[in-house]
Amino acid sequence: MSMPLAELLDHLKKTAALSQVASLISWDQETMMPASGAVQRAEQSGALASVLHARNADPRIPEWIGAIDLPSLSAFDRRNVAEAQRAYDRATKIPARLAEESARAASEGQRIWAMARAAGDFAMFAPALRRNIELAREEAACLAGPGDELYDSLLDTFEPGARVAELEPLLEGMRPGLVALRENIAGKTAPPGIEGHFPADAQLLLARTIAARFGYDLHAGRIDTVVHPFCSGTGDDVRITTRTDEADPFNCLFSTVHETGHALYNQGITDAFLPAADYCSMGVHESQSRFWENQIGRSRPFADWLYPAMEGAFGELSLPGPDALYAAVNRVHSGFIRTEADEVHYNLHILMRFELERDLIAGALEVEDLEAAWNARFERDFGMAVPDAGRGVLQDVHWSVGLFGYFPTYSLGNIYSACLDRAMRRDLPDRDAMVRAAETQPILDWLRARIHMKGRLLPAAELIEEATGEKPSAAPLIAYLEDKFGSLYDL
Amino acid sequence: MSMPLAELLDHLKKTAALSQVASLISWDQETMMPASGAVQRAEQSGALASVLHARNADPRIPEWIGAIDLPSLSAFDRRNVAEAQRAYDRATKIPARLAEESARAASEGQRIWAMARAAGDFAMFAPALRRNIELAREEAACLAGPGDELYDSLLDTFEPGARVAELEPLLEGMRPGLVALRENIAGKTAPPGIEGHFPADAQLLLARTIAARFGYDLHAGRIDTVVHPFCSGTGDDVRITTRTDEADPFNCLFSTVHETGHALYNQGITDAFLPAADYCSMGVHESQSRFWENQIGRSRPFADWLYPAMEGAFGELSLPGPDALYAAVNRVHSGFIRTEADEVHYNLHILMRFELERDLIAGALEVEDLEAAWNARFERDFGMAVPDAGRGVLQDVHWSVGLFGYFPTYSLGNIYSACLDRAMRRDLPDRDAMVRAAETQPILDWLRARIHMKGRLLPAAELIEEATGEKPSAAPLIAYLEDKFGSLYDL
Repeated sequence: MSMPLAELLDHLKKTAALSQVASLISWDQETMMPASGAVQRAEQSGALASVLHARNADPRIPEWIGAIDLPSLSAFDRRNVAEAQRAYDRATKIPARLAEESARAASEGQRIWAMARAAGDFAMFAPALRRNIELAREEAACLAGPGDELYDSLLDTFEPGARVAELEPLLEGMRPGLVALRENIAGKTAPPGIEGHFPADAQLLLARTIAARFGYDLHAGRIDTVVHPFCSGTGDDVRITTRTDEADPFNCLFSTVHETGHALYNQGITDAFLPAADYCSMGVHESQSRFWENQIGRSRPFADWLYPAMEGAFGELSLPGPDALYAAVNRVHSGFIRTEADEVHYNLHILMRFELERDLIAGALEVEDLEAAWNARFERDFGMAVPDAGRGVLQDVHWSVGLFGYFPTYSLGNIYSACLDRAMRRDLPDRDAMVRAAETQPILDWLRARIHMKGRLLPAAELIEEATGEKPSAAPLIAYLEDKFGSLYDL
Repeated sequence: MSMPLAELLDHLKKTAALSQVASLISWDQETMMPASGAVQRAEQSGALASVLHARNADPRIPEWIGAIDLPSLSAFDRRNVAEAQRAYDRATKIPARLAEESARAASEGQRIWAMARAAGDFAMFAPALRRNIELAREEAACLAGPGDELYDSLLDTFEPGARVAELEPLLEGMRPGLVALRENIAGKTAPPGIEGHFPADAQLLLARTIAARFGYDLHAGRIDTVVHPFCSGTGDDVRITTRTDEADPFNCLFSTVHETGHALYNQGITDAFLPAADYCSMGVHESQSRFWENQIGRSRPFADWLYPAMEGAFGELSLPGPDALYAAVNRVHSGFIRTEADEVHYNLHILMRFELERDLIAGALEVEDLEAAWNARFERDFGMAVPDAGRGVLQDVHWSVGLFGYFPTYSLGNIYSACLDRAMRRDLPDRDAMVRAAETQPILDWLRARIHMKGRLLPAAELIEEATGEKPSAAPLIAYLEDKFGSLYDL
């Protein structure tokens, strides 16, 4: 290996290790940190962000890259060099002072959000949100090319190459199909949900069993409980979080399966320290969580495994059998909470967040008008009044930690997961039997080979096209939803 | 504030924040990390150590210091400058490569030690230990002045200014008194220990209650269980760890009180980010843990509070009352494990470790001869044969993480705690009544004012002298032990 390449890769490897530390202290903040530690933690996160920024902006990076004979490199190392250049460009355009302030504002914003959410008081959160928006706009302005919307630069952070001009028709194009489906279903009688008391410990034990059966390596991971579940870490230390509601076991089970999907991706990468091996984009990441949550976890075959497993965990169920369980876990209901939404409503939640955050960043919506705008839009799309800010504008953590441009990746995830589902069914004709037995290793192997082990070698759309043989579009998702819910609701 | 001083302090503050992150990921490694994460964690620790090293060796530090008008500074800021200079000197004498290798070897050494300890197989651990010794010698050689023993440089890391030539007579000077006391007690009948089954949960709950009553702020801390208890963090996030043995509740209770003593010091500092406010030395740190563990926790007055509390936690006890409890928690027994040793034997454990590690560093003892040397010395000092390496040479974590020169600070802690005890009894004549009620705030206030809030303004011996009015010596410790055990054993 040439010296400049070796030095660059060593630099990238240490940066990745420090970035893993930053993820770990975020995980700790959510799961383990004592309450009084928050202010001190903000200093720690800020200092680490500043170190990472300086490493990404190291002036030796363009020197190393300039001295590398690019055509002689493997595709993998060419990608490593390109990712180093991308990180360098972003870091040198964003001043260290701004990166550090953003990290500190995120930590502080999250602390205030948690209090505001508990109090159901949006006004308590507004100043922190305003600050996060200012910082995000400032960051976007540093990155924007000529003619870019500020929001494009934010999107690009999570979904490299995505542009609002292309994303908007893709997302908005789903609306007619989703609205028609929702309206058709609204005229039908919903199947019964599950009833009973489901002890938290028993839920967590069953969730752990399912995660392990789907291939989550618990020697390289752990499961803790939080308010807003997430997955953290990569390689040999990938931690997931979940939550429990003793009246609703599906909250815990499907949150866990969702995060397991993320964790399987992170445990499946080929190198935890090199950017070419890292996950492709947030949209692709979300495709993995959605795939395991919906196409596997909420499928009719899995209900055959889950029904007796739930009887074992909780005793006799209020539902008569797997058919009723399948109907119950796919029950369509106009709830307030995005993370509890069914597959029909989920993307409608994203569409409104996408509109609102795009307007906030563009300056077309002021923070003081956000709660009213949220509530009005929610009523328009979902036909219900938001009862309190905790079930409305304060429900999601994202904006409190400065994540703007992230929400659309959830819908991209749903779109990609349906594309992968269609292709996998062709390749694995006996997939239903595997899912019925919860013996899903061939499914994981299929995803490992086509997605996890491909890292960042291709941009998201090309990766999905290579994996499925078709350019990604929303058509497979709409067809999947019409098929599944058409049959469940006799449409 | 002058610009160079402000820049220096800002630099020190960020370094302290990153150093807190390093402590946090060590805590995580012991308490939360999944088993497979160890190799990746070694890379993370190494990368962070390398960042800290570079910050301590930043060439701007001597420039800032050179531009500061030292005589105009407060004593606090003069100390900050002196600590920056000390860290700079250490960092520039130790190459970054060596600091990073040591951190990685420590992480890897600890992993191997844990396996070797579980297997009771010293040979499994020997190569990692040999590596740690090589690195420690290399580090000591970088720091040593003319005529220094290598071991002096290691000592100085934990106990600034301590020298083996002064430490050895102080420690060895304790031996005759300790041996005489042990031999006198050996001829007497030991009082009964406690018997019964003590559920781990009940132990942890009682330990938590005691920690809180002694002033440990659980909103700024947490308690977890590990193999080898420790305290981690400073300021508003100070975490302690403990362990449980269902046949022996005192293991958990006094481990917890010990770590609580450390935690009270760390929670009591006046600034978590400036070195002048940091703890004075490891010996002084240990004086705090030993004081709460022995002079308070194992005192006759505290038995009056503890007896009914233990009845509440565990039901009827095998011991008839507080006198018997006091005798039981001070039972002298020739055990194998340092962390379970009574006050009479404890310093004998330290003396042999001090001799062995000094010889290892000086090259007078080879790693392949260490287990035999340990076992021979143990038999000489304690009159018993070591049954297995887990209860012998593999019992302590220290050498596995490259800590040499650390053990003597435990005995310094015992010496200092007895000095503080004597002085405090003069200042707080009704101390026994406070301890009897577990209403110990005035005791904590006394330590806060004289030790915790003084930070590093004085070196250890001067700090103890200022707090107590007397130069520190082993005399108060020997007198305290002769008094306590003379009365308990009718000597």
